[in-house]
Amino acid sequence: MPTASVRFRVHLGSHAAVGPGKIALLEHINQSGSLAGAARNLKMSYKRAWQLLDSLNRTFTLPVVVTVTGGRGGGGASLTALGDALIDAYRSFDDAIQTRAAGHFGPLMRHLGNSRSPANGATVVRRSPRRKAKKQR
Amino acid sequence: MPTASVRFRVHLGSHAAVGPGKIALLEHINQSGSLAGAARNLKMSYKRAWQLLDSLNRTFTLPVVVTVTGGRGGGGASLTALGDALIDAYRSFDDAIQTRAAGHFGPLMRHLGNSRSPANGATVVRRSPRRKAKKQR
Repeated sequence: MPTASVRFRVHLGSHAAVGPGKIALLEHINQSGSLAGAARNLKMSYKRAWQLLDSLNRTFTLPVVVTVTGGRGGGGASLTALGDALIDAYRSFDDAIQTRAAGHFGPLMRHLGNSRSPANGATVVRRSPRRKAKKQR
Repeated sequence: MPTASVRFRVHLGSHAAVGPGKIALLEHINQSGSLAGAARNLKMSYKRAWQLLDSLNRTFTLPVVVTVTGGRGGGGASLTALGDALIDAYRSFDDAIQTRAAGHFGPLMRHLGNSRSPANGATVVRRSPRRKAKKQR
């Protein structure tokens, strides 16, 4: 039996948003200890990873990741307490709403059909741009 | 003081998803009594509205909207009990998670900065593709 799940993005005020991409980046920075490593693990360009992190660091009055500039192959990145708190808040919110969604939309899931065929008894809308109207059963 | 809000889409199993666009379409069909009227109110092409509704009607074993094909300017559309239930479930879920998000992310909102300037104390990541590294304060 399939369950309902939610994809979401949290808007913090009117200028900033945090979604699965930025959170995954922070988690991979935490694991690999570097932005380049995180980008590699996420199969994301370094430029894209840098932009996401820059956007996050501009969101708050404190950084979420601090980096040490270094020489050859050097330069590590690590999460600040705020970065840790952001991941924790996002993940616990995610857990809570996935659980809620599964319960909340459960009754509707009983009516889920095969997505390939039209709903049994569905009337066909006039002037279909894609297919001819069929007779109703 | 800004608050956190969530933009989301509910995935029902692996084939179907319902987000703000489809729900708004159902609500406008309910208000205007026709798909063409709903499309007009939403400033959406009739084709696009038709495709969204077709996708919804294929999601379930029962239709969410039934239409009467008609002559000149004719043909009305109205929600089924399932369509009503889908709107109700989506809107009550929306209310619940917006309230939860505002509380959950409240502590982080205290650290929200001006999005135009980098975080105070944020270190600049090496090899910036967009700007030169500045000295840390």
